[in-house]
Amino acid sequence: MSSLSSTQSPLGPTEASSSRVSNGKQPAVEDDHSDEEALLADDPLERDLPDQISFKRKPQASTSSFGFSRYLPSRRQQHGSNARADGSTELILNYLDTPGDAGERLQDSKDANGLDWYVEGPGRRVGYDDLTAIDWIFEYAKERQRLRYLYSGASGILGHIKQLADASQVWIILVAAGILSGGIAAFIDIAGDWLADLKTGYCHNVDGDGQIYLNKAFCCWGHEEEQTCHDWNSWGAAMGIGSVGGRYVVEYIFFVLYSVLFAACASLLVREFSPYAKHSGIPEIKTVLGGFVIRHFLGGWTLVTKTIGLCLAVASGLWLGKEGPLVHVACCSANLFMKLFSNVNDNEARKREVLSAAAAAGISVAFGAPIGGVLFSLEQLSYYFPDKTMWSSFVCAMVAAVTLQACNPFRTGKLVLYQVTYHSGWHDFEIVPFAFLGILGGLFGGLFIKLNMGVAEWRKNRQYLKGPVTEVVIVSFITALINFPIKFMRAQASELVHILFAECADLSEDTLGLCKSGKANTGVVALLLISSGLGVILASFTFGLQIPAGIILPSMAIGGLFGRAVGLSVQIFQAALPSLFIFKSCEPDVPCVTPGTYAIVGAASALAGTTRMTVSIVVIMFELTGALTYVLPIMIAVMISKWIGDAISPRGIYESWIHFKGYPFLDNRDDNSSTIPDVGASHVMTRIEDLTAITATGHTIASLRQLLSQHRFRGFPVIDNSRDALLLGYISRTELQYALQAALTPPRNLPDDTEAYFSHHPLSDPTTSLNLRPWMDQTPITLNAKASFQLTVSMFQRLGLRYVVFTERGMLRGLLTKKDVWYVMNSVEEDSEEGGAGVSVGAGGLREERGDDGDGEGEEHGLLGEEDEERDRFIGGE
Amino acid sequence: MSSLSSTQSPLGPTEASSSRVSNGKQPAVEDDHSDEEALLADDPLERDLPDQISFKRKPQASTSSFGFSRYLPSRRQQHGSNARADGSTELILNYLDTPGDAGERLQDSKDANGLDWYVEGPGRRVGYDDLTAIDWIFEYAKERQRLRYLYSGASGILGHIKQLADASQVWIILVAAGILSGGIAAFIDIAGDWLADLKTGYCHNVDGDGQIYLNKAFCCWGHEEEQTCHDWNSWGAAMGIGSVGGRYVVEYIFFVLYSVLFAACASLLVREFSPYAKHSGIPEIKTVLGGFVIRHFLGGWTLVTKTIGLCLAVASGLWLGKEGPLVHVACCSANLFMKLFSNVNDNEARKREVLSAAAAAGISVAFGAPIGGVLFSLEQLSYYFPDKTMWSSFVCAMVAAVTLQACNPFRTGKLVLYQVTYHSGWHDFEIVPFAFLGILGGLFGGLFIKLNMGVAEWRKNRQYLKGPVTEVVIVSFITALINFPIKFMRAQASELVHILFAECADLSEDTLGLCKSGKANTGVVALLLISSGLGVILASFTFGLQIPAGIILPSMAIGGLFGRAVGLSVQIFQAALPSLFIFKSCEPDVPCVTPGTYAIVGAASALAGTTRMTVSIVVIMFELTGALTYVLPIMIAVMISKWIGDAISPRGIYESWIHFKGYPFLDNRDDNSSTIPDVGASHVMTRIEDLTAITATGHTIASLRQLLSQHRFRGFPVIDNSRDALLLGYISRTELQYALQAALTPPRNLPDDTEAYFSHHPLSDPTTSLNLRPWMDQTPITLNAKASFQLTVSMFQRLGLRYVVFTERGMLRGLLTKKDVWYVMNSVEEDSEEGGAGVSVGAGGLREERGDDGDGEGEEHGLLGEEDEERDRFIGGE
Repeated sequence: MSSLSSTQSPLGPTEASSSRVSNGKQPAVEDDHSDEEALLADDPLERDLPDQISFKRKPQASTSSFGFSRYLPSRRQQHGSNARADGSTELILNYLDTPGDAGERLQDSKDANGLDWYVEGPGRRVGYDDLTAIDWIFEYAKERQRLRYLYSGASGILGHIKQLADASQVWIILVAAGILSGGIAAFIDIAGDWLADLKTGYCHNVDGDGQIYLNKAFCCWGHEEEQTCHDWNSWGAAMGIGSVGGRYVVEYIFFVLYSVLFAACASLLVREFSPYAKHSGIPEIKTVLGGFVIRHFLGGWTLVTKTIGLCLAVASGLWLGKEGPLVHVACCSANLFMKLFSNVNDNEARKREVLSAAAAAGISVAFGAPIGGVLFSLEQLSYYFPDKTMWSSFVCAMVAAVTLQACNPFRTGKLVLYQVTYHSGWHDFEIVPFAFLGILGGLFGGLFIKLNMGVAEWRKNRQYLKGPVTEVVIVSFITALINFPIKFMRAQASELVHILFAECADLSEDTLGLCKSGKANTGVVALLLISSGLGVILASFTFGLQIPAGIILPSMAIGGLFGRAVGLSVQIFQAALPSLFIFKSCEPDVPCVTPGTYAIVGAASALAGTTRMTVSIVVIMFELTGALTYVLPIMIAVMISKWIGDAISPRGIYESWIHFKGYPFLDNRDDNSSTIPDVGASHVMTRIEDLTAITATGHTIASLRQLLSQHRFRGFPVIDNSRDALLLGYISRTELQYALQAALTPPRNLPDDTEAYFSHHPLSDPTTSLNLRPWMDQTPITLNAKASFQLTVSMFQRLGLRYVVFTERGMLRGLLTKKDVWYVMNSVEEDSEEGGAGVSVGAGGLREERGDDGDGEGEEHGLLGEEDEERDRFIGGE
Repeated sequence: MSSLSSTQSPLGPTEASSSRVSNGKQPAVEDDHSDEEALLADDPLERDLPDQISFKRKPQASTSSFGFSRYLPSRRQQHGSNARADGSTELILNYLDTPGDAGERLQDSKDANGLDWYVEGPGRRVGYDDLTAIDWIFEYAKERQRLRYLYSGASGILGHIKQLADASQVWIILVAAGILSGGIAAFIDIAGDWLADLKTGYCHNVDGDGQIYLNKAFCCWGHEEEQTCHDWNSWGAAMGIGSVGGRYVVEYIFFVLYSVLFAACASLLVREFSPYAKHSGIPEIKTVLGGFVIRHFLGGWTLVTKTIGLCLAVASGLWLGKEGPLVHVACCSANLFMKLFSNVNDNEARKREVLSAAAAAGISVAFGAPIGGVLFSLEQLSYYFPDKTMWSSFVCAMVAAVTLQACNPFRTGKLVLYQVTYHSGWHDFEIVPFAFLGILGGLFGGLFIKLNMGVAEWRKNRQYLKGPVTEVVIVSFITALINFPIKFMRAQASELVHILFAECADLSEDTLGLCKSGKANTGVVALLLISSGLGVILASFTFGLQIPAGIILPSMAIGGLFGRAVGLSVQIFQAALPSLFIFKSCEPDVPCVTPGTYAIVGAASALAGTTRMTVSIVVIMFELTGALTYVLPIMIAVMISKWIGDAISPRGIYESWIHFKGYPFLDNRDDNSSTIPDVGASHVMTRIEDLTAITATGHTIASLRQLLSQHRFRGFPVIDNSRDALLLGYISRTELQYALQAALTPPRNLPDDTEAYFSHHPLSDPTTSLNLRPWMDQTPITLNAKASFQLTVSMFQRLGLRYVVFTERGMLRGLLTKKDVWYVMNSVEEDSEEGGAGVSVGAGGLREERGDDGDGEGEEHGLLGEEDEERDRFIGGE
């Protein structure tokens, strides 16, 4: 029987048991700051860095407890089990000194070899590099350690205050982020409207001091009579243009000019200040929340650029929305405040919890729907969404909504322009057109995604008219040209949705002539359908431009347009044939059909078709209308739309973009989906023959440095010796690099030919040899090489692993990294999508395609290029 | 280098690769039916049972595809990767025949030993016994296999229809369950009201035919004037009782009599027909959803008994609610319909997904809050809640709500009695009393849980007045005695909540005199507080009786009572000092304070205090009031209440009951909680010295049967030989028992002294020896013995494992089962709760306490007694 190395001397204070855990800002030894710190300490492995977390329990702590029972320490009850009140050291002592069993245990472990068990385990870590996956398990373990330290380190009132302060940090961040998001949303509403109104006119104070800071609605319908609004038409008249046609041309020119100007400014801003501010940001947020590090994506500059760019982009009249980008803005806000609290900021897993929660605020302010926001975050964005995240998410969403309501940007008390109240219910026969809207929505969604991805593909590959700003100018010019003559498209998208959803109860709001009755509507129906078709084309060119642009509002507008068209048709039909049996539930004098409700059902189904969300959409629409009445038809339409959309294009728009950009996002949603090939993991893993494994002994610092320079893999399994490949652990490139560098530089100053080893050498001299074992993950997650690939995928998805090592009877057999798994699943999906049948992934095909990958996909894949070769064909050191 | 047993002959059709997967109804060999089946087949390991699922891919399948792309098979695109269109066999062929890499791979595996890899893996399984944990990983793998088989087995239109039919099964179940739940809720509303009204009078048709089927409201306030309602007071008058006091006594007697009668009937029903119908059912549902099998808990009899019992219990006027039990009813409904579809019914994991979804319907109809229901299921009940569950949950909840609305039990169009609309907002100064209500709610919740658990403990231990019916009669008698004289308590709980929440806008609804103004209210405040205090005591005795009884409504009523009291106090204070600076936001003539809103905030905070839910409560209250206005105060109160409640009693009421009853529920919520001791897994695991491991060879059937009779453990690790303990796999007791029994009985009829082995013996004769290897889990999840216990817990929580085997360099080191983990975490929690400090769990203490356990805890723990010894001190066969 081999040795059982445990529990002999866990209290030995001389053993190095500190962990070097640096935050993301200090990725490697090249960092000056960390070198400076190295100078200050005696031993780089034991120095007391500010961000160091000891993985050893503090022996001097005298009392501690876990959980909330501390608040009432007097409430100790003695029934049931033997209560112990003497602190955390108790735990260790318990194993050693409890007379009965622990003593027996000591005798059990006959050849315990003097190791302290807490040096073993996940190993010391350096922070994450940009564009790498995080280790959820490790991050959560780190957090637990931190909490344990916090709870054991201080007692009494001061301790309680400390703990309270620690617990409240997340809430402070979330409340602050909520307030900021709400404020930004209000700012974008007001500024965007003001800019958009510039396209049609300007506000002029008759006093002559030109108050152009009021938007059209306030200016022209304001209380103060001395202000007058001038549209460019009347300006043209003032300039002496007599003919109606001429004035129309003047209006047209100003409209197009301003549109292009706004769009160009937005795109210039993005290009100059923060490239991450482009697009909706949701695919990237999904990737980040899935456990990937993208530096600067949530930075302060991104926030500022995105906010201002969004005002401009919205005002430009392009077919884009601010809803998706607002989620990005909310996440940026949270990230901004998170930087103030290093406890949260240094833990990548907690950071993602906070970001998940903050994302809800984005949708909350975009739709005035806090619950919808929470469900959006849960359904669309989040990867791990623990119970407590839901509550913090809800708090953040509510704070944001309340802030927006306090700002009251529309001066109507409504949170969003298109909140509606319907005064009548729906009739049974309307289920048929509602279901038809679901079909339309699904068709739109599926085809739009195909079109949009086709445009994106074409945009990437074409050789002429390149350049982000050029593209934006061209698209915005064409959009403005098309928008102006068509009354539905000239309006801002949010205004259009508002009008489409409206009930026709208040005819004064019917600025676009949608509430006429009878046959006069036939023309309107045609115009609605034309607008909707043009919208599809324009939106598919717009979503993907280098400006802040969301797809939620355009989808809703398009859905609203065809929905209203269907509603008007039903209305015309019913008016023409009121005596038909299906209409017998209609009361004679009351309008039977409310076309506005068709618009909202259409919008919901179009949104379901593009984003493939379900619950969130229904809840958002419920919150917009405020009544359960229309939930059932919306539900049916959304469900049909999702089915049809999935049949046409299996991925939603965000997943399509994730796939297009090649982000390593491992979807943990489709547990039962057949995209996971039914093979043994051994058929997919990188087998030992193709791996670079390091043997436990026989290295020098120089040889390991050479190994690092030869291979660019992110990590290396450590084996006993090259003959029998007994797995000892796994060391990441970052940690190995850091440890080697630390050994070469002061204070250790070891020569290049120092012996380095990964196994336990109790007698070796630490001044003349380098023990790399503390840097090694000595308990990597292993699976039997015979396990199925599906089990492996479950492990990656549910545990958030970075790698799994395959063993058989303790021998290293292979390795799979998160990216390998992602790669396999992506290829399978692609195959099943394109081939329609068969799964064609083997380790061979995998390697082959992997080779192509780095070169073929251009800039976006380049982002991941460095990681793509994570293995080699090299066994043994030296 | 040792052998790499893979990929040599994966297509070999002679290898037995079928898996015996039986549903829950055929647990073991004792089952007659399965023996009968054994007679029909040639080989018990290869026979073609109706519920058999082949884990081998069908080689004859010619075309197949995955995902929705099948719907448009013509849409094959050829960009990107090499699409393959020739079916699922391709996958295997790919590894063998692709010229380049696969050929290379074949040469790589030099000593492949002719095994088919798919016989290896999780092993064949027999169904689950009652009161055992399910294996989520295995169940999901089974489901994936089934889907793959379905998708590959049939092509063309027929195949599509089959797939569609398969996919729609869940929806049929959920819609049917929703409709049934809605119907049952309406029935309970109507029947409960009618019965309750019997307590105060009866409906009498002046025609003389005695229409007593109408409840009081319809009878006395009905359109039809010929009906009159008689209360017992007037009946007393008719009987010739002249004095007011005498008539009051008559009323009193009838009230008490009927109350006791109803309660006794409910309790008799439960005792006679279905003991699982008692209580709220939520602790058990949590346990079931957490992956535990409790037979008959969701059966048809339980449904019927619970429904009728609930009407009686509600009518009895005891302090209980129907909300929690309705969740149980909804789950029973879903389970009923699930039995029609064996595909869902046979998979314990899918079953739990459907049950999670159906649970939402219960809260949906209880509060008319479909979204609240979904969030309740997500927050309180569900263990694994994948994305798609949310949507099915929502559909089920909506269907149930719509059905209830169609039944319209209250004839008001409202889904629940206490839906309210407030016409005014709240003022800033009110945040202080709202927060105070949060404190009160938290105090109530925490103390109530302590009181209730104390009562439960006392009830279990006392020696006199035992018997479920006796208890119910006594409690209901005392409750009725107390209820009658106090006007707030005489009303049904739902009616009381309705009146407490009301706005006082409509004074005709003020039947209890809550809308008086000025100092007349002081007495009312006192009465409200007294009622609330009495309610706490009565509810704490009632929750735990052997009748269907929920705690949600009583909590809300108690919270409403003290909330309204606080509201009235604030109103009195404001009326007395209207000029105080804090009241300056009040308008002079309008009532400034709406006491009803205090009642709703109080109810929310009381509910948060007992159940520790957050989001669900806020959303339920939002759906009850229909406006975002009061969400912020409710949120604040709920948050404070949860904090204070957690401080007083760390577990919510349902978790307390789970703990009290000793259900093996492994909470996966508190990832970061400090209840997980920070030790190495090796300190907690059952070490190899204490385990019964089976060696691979050297057994006969008789010796293994003897082993089974000697040890009652649920499973045994299989090791190479007793010298070096190289881990080969793990075999569960059920499978071992089944395999041995199958070998002894026809058609195999092996003699008792047949050799049985677990390793690979290619040359052994299957007619004279028994190969148990296919029944063994050959890829058990292993962890390094040096891994931390926290990591182990994460594995159990996230992957839903039943056991983890600990190895070190391939050697067996120890074992932890789900129940061991549960046990450790429970003990730690108990310790930290009672001792306030220190963690005192070691392997020794663990074993010791385990010994006490089975005997000490009485009937509830007896339920688990059999499982408690899962290990022994025995190594090696024989």
